[in-house]
Amino acid sequence: MTATTPTKRATTEDDITAEVLRRYEGTPDPRVKQIMQSLTKHIHAFIKEVGLTEKEWFHAIDFLTRTGQMCDERRQEFILLSDTTGVSMLVDLISNKKPIGATESTVFGPFHRDGAPERELGTNMAEGEERGEPCIITGTVTGLDGKPISGAKLDTWQADPGGFYDSQRPELDHMHMRGIYTTGADGKYTIVTTRPVHYQIPSDGPVGEMLRATKRHSWRPAHVHFVVSAEGYEPVTTHIFDSIDPDLNGDAVFGVKDSLICEFRSHTQPSAESQKLGVKTPFSATEFNFVLAPAKK
Amino acid sequence: MTATTPTKRATTEDDITAEVLRRYEGTPDPRVKQIMQSLTKHIHAFIKEVGLTEKEWFHAIDFLTRTGQMCDERRQEFILLSDTTGVSMLVDLISNKKPIGATESTVFGPFHRDGAPERELGTNMAEGEERGEPCIITGTVTGLDGKPISGAKLDTWQADPGGFYDSQRPELDHMHMRGIYTTGADGKYTIVTTRPVHYQIPSDGPVGEMLRATKRHSWRPAHVHFVVSAEGYEPVTTHIFDSIDPDLNGDAVFGVKDSLICEFRSHTQPSAESQKLGVKTPFSATEFNFVLAPAKK
Repeated sequence: MTATTPTKRATTEDDITAEVLRRYEGTPDPRVKQIMQSLTKHIHAFIKEVGLTEKEWFHAIDFLTRTGQMCDERRQEFILLSDTTGVSMLVDLISNKKPIGATESTVFGPFHRDGAPERELGTNMAEGEERGEPCIITGTVTGLDGKPISGAKLDTWQADPGGFYDSQRPELDHMHMRGIYTTGADGKYTIVTTRPVHYQIPSDGPVGEMLRATKRHSWRPAHVHFVVSAEGYEPVTTHIFDSIDPDLNGDAVFGVKDSLICEFRSHTQPSAESQKLGVKTPFSATEFNFVLAPAKK
Repeated sequence: MTATTPTKRATTEDDITAEVLRRYEGTPDPRVKQIMQSLTKHIHAFIKEVGLTEKEWFHAIDFLTRTGQMCDERRQEFILLSDTTGVSMLVDLISNKKPIGATESTVFGPFHRDGAPERELGTNMAEGEERGEPCIITGTVTGLDGKPISGAKLDTWQADPGGFYDSQRPELDHMHMRGIYTTGADGKYTIVTTRPVHYQIPSDGPVGEMLRATKRHSWRPAHVHFVVSAEGYEPVTTHIFDSIDPDLNGDAVFGVKDSLICEFRSHTQPSAESQKLGVKTPFSATEFNFVLAPAKK
């Protein structure tokens, strides 16, 4: 065996970490350098702390590979993984600090789709849906000063009464339970839909394996998604939650914030509004006012 | 706005981490529980330390998704990511602690393929290759006691003289520069190939983006890959490296260990062995003895 040269190379666990950190020293962008060095330190610390075995490493490689391969234009398994590990909510808390009084944000989730249809105020984004209880959501979009914002966009999406998003139903060839509503001059909006239901996040992929291996449930409390935006304001990505949902304290993706919980009132008699909107009885109704912070300079 | 219930939910960055850790409390397998809780702590600590923004998070989701989607039966971009971030070598150091005297291991890498052809001792795994310098690699596989191991398998693979593995050449319909050699009764092996060359790891995917963004080079010093295995012994995944390679101290995947560096001697005259094997002059030759540790009980 012809071997050994006088040079010294990484031979211990800590040598390797030091050498990897050193390799990032020449990174031109200081933020990229900071992120890569911090990530290296923390990922290496995790591996050392648990003494990760080669077999476990192979499992992780396979898990991450399959997570990426499950993603397509209808499914984002990496966002689901981020959501179920609390990463999304942590980034939300750090990244989306809002001034007092502004509507709080929550997870974006894996089910948003670009290009949802623009809908007139008061129209039904659950059109054609025979299941579920009709529901009217109304409110005003204002600035921190309480002044209504005209022309604010509410990009709205929701699981259907069976607990599935349109993107989870391969037989659907059109968008369903989605719409972009635009506030009028008074900042008000009216959305007709079905009352949101709690549902299980998709468990037929790597995230489902993780939840089963750790005996975690996969329920999300009933909610409607919104991205509310308007020129000159900071957009907010958020949900409204149904206050009677039993899973409010156990959301599989840790998304619940107290300020986003709404009372959905049940109506067994028609109201003037439900008659005007053509909404059948019984129905439920709730109100939520979005307050946008000014755009960052 | 109808809001707030008396329940208390995660409202700070540390609340979220505590709640995620709590969700893993019911994990039946203590090892899975340990890994998930440690991973949560370290990933959350990283995100808090750098104050990861939503935009950076989206970039990470997209990066990981594309890394998974680049993987197929010929390419494993997640292993490449693990290799280039020092994770693979760290796991190797932790997982493959060998007794003194046993051949050291190094990274597996992304280019191994199952089902390489079984080759007779002394045959050329670079057959048909017109480029590169012919090379003879010989040695013995023994136990820690120095006794030769008969029937040991050497699963061997290598980049071609142009610096590419067969799996990187879509026009190739057969395996090239690979073979499984089996030691005889004397534990000896003889492999004919070409002298390994240094090469750049694939940079047309997310890993290449990372290397460019951090101004890291993508060179690996010249090496030949081996997985050496025999019944009753612990297999070893390793390389041998060419001692004259200028990149021995800067391997893009941190794989070099001193004990794996070999002198490849240049021969300008035929030797008895090169004549017997039909190897053209000039050629190079090296010798490496593999020492296997006994199988773990």
